[in-house]
Amino acid sequence: MVSKSQIKLITSLEQKKGRSKTGLFMVEGRKGIAELLSSPFKLHSLFTAEDIFVSPQEKTFTITQAELKKISRLKTAQTAVALFEIPTEKRVNTQKLIVALDGVRDPGNLGTIIRLCDWFGIEDLVCSVDTVDCYNPKVVQATMGSITRVNIVYKNLLQFLEENPSAPKWGTFLDGSNIYKSEISEKGIIILGNEANGISSEIEEVISSKIHIPQFGTAAETESLNVATATAIVLSEFKRRTIN
Amino acid sequence: MVSKSQIKLITSLEQKKGRSKTGLFMVEGRKGIAELLSSPFKLHSLFTAEDIFVSPQEKTFTITQAELKKISRLKTAQTAVALFEIPTEKRVNTQKLIVALDGVRDPGNLGTIIRLCDWFGIEDLVCSVDTVDCYNPKVVQATMGSITRVNIVYKNLLQFLEENPSAPKWGTFLDGSNIYKSEISEKGIIILGNEANGISSEIEEVISSKIHIPQFGTAAETESLNVATATAIVLSEFKRRTIN
Repeated sequence: MVSKSQIKLITSLEQKKGRSKTGLFMVEGRKGIAELLSSPFKLHSLFTAEDIFVSPQEKTFTITQAELKKISRLKTAQTAVALFEIPTEKRVNTQKLIVALDGVRDPGNLGTIIRLCDWFGIEDLVCSVDTVDCYNPKVVQATMGSITRVNIVYKNLLQFLEENPSAPKWGTFLDGSNIYKSEISEKGIIILGNEANGISSEIEEVISSKIHIPQFGTAAETESLNVATATAIVLSEFKRRTIN
Repeated sequence: MVSKSQIKLITSLEQKKGRSKTGLFMVEGRKGIAELLSSPFKLHSLFTAEDIFVSPQEKTFTITQAELKKISRLKTAQTAVALFEIPTEKRVNTQKLIVALDGVRDPGNLGTIIRLCDWFGIEDLVCSVDTVDCYNPKVVQATMGSITRVNIVYKNLLQFLEENPSAPKWGTFLDGSNIYKSEISEKGIIILGNEANGISSEIEEVISSKIHIPQFGTAAETESLNVATATAIVLSEFKRRTIN
């Protein structure tokens, strides 16, 4: 059974305003919920049409398929909807390799980047304040549980970079030098930019090393790779060299 | 002005059946259409609300925003819709590096993979017959014009691989060997599998080298990377080593 006020709460979480006000976010689907339940993330409430989760009884509400349809934001509603508390941001460890995003707007791209950080052992992801909110339901869905294993913080990116003057700062640019031949190291900050405009000019000024993924095909020179695939290639390149 | 029969034709192209019957596919948006117009692809007809394209007069129809809305499949209709002829598949050059897909189903993933092939100079992309159709409007949109620069063929994948017994065949598997330390070469076939199930068992039997992108984080061991990001990393790794 799901009450009117619960429906109101759940649907409010589709917007950032609702999430900021309540400190909660929503996740849908069996796999995502199971991953979050087995993580340090704190469950607020679970609305499920099937009795398949291990969760505290007082926070678990059994609902009908019709009720599920009302609270789901997906076209094909999944088994359940769960609300979790947004965790507090942890301190960024500048002694390790960090990824920073300058205005990434697409939820699917941010979700993929979080998943890549998890895969490649990046513990901290620093997002500019104009980057899409990582607790947006579309982002949460795309991370496939990785959101519980990466510390994601939102900051004034320029200020953060300026506060770490000695850290190497790599940024991807069309006129950067060949990443496969660039000097890289095990700690520092890798910066990726907005889907349409790349890295902003104010951030460009504090970049210490401009890198570029060379193009082997005949694609028009102005073309660039999608920011999520660029992140995949850059992280693979940094990690491969530090293990070999 | 767009006629009723034209509307019927255009909307039929959203389905594979309509595309197979007519030999046409559709593309939307200023940038995508401009890229296709400047490629060897043959224009069938162009329906545009703005006079911004260089196209033969007899194939160009000026339409209103209201008409555009009727023929667009996007929520926010773009400037124009164009129909192009589906090109004939070219012979695959087995003396170069080829990418093959075994049952990739998501249009966004296929679009990203086509774009990556273009970026990394892969001329031929061989798709199993159960891979999503590359002339699906969502795929065309995601390729950002790259579809004109990669030869995409649909084949019985097992038969194609068996017909090329001497070509090295790499496939990505969770239990494969570290790609960064694997033997690779400038020609051969890189095979990527379905989003949920990976490479099918019948294809697995003809793989000569199982490779794996090592995981550096604490992600659950059963987790895998998205097929498009895996393609990005694998192609980057193959290309970086053949130039260095």
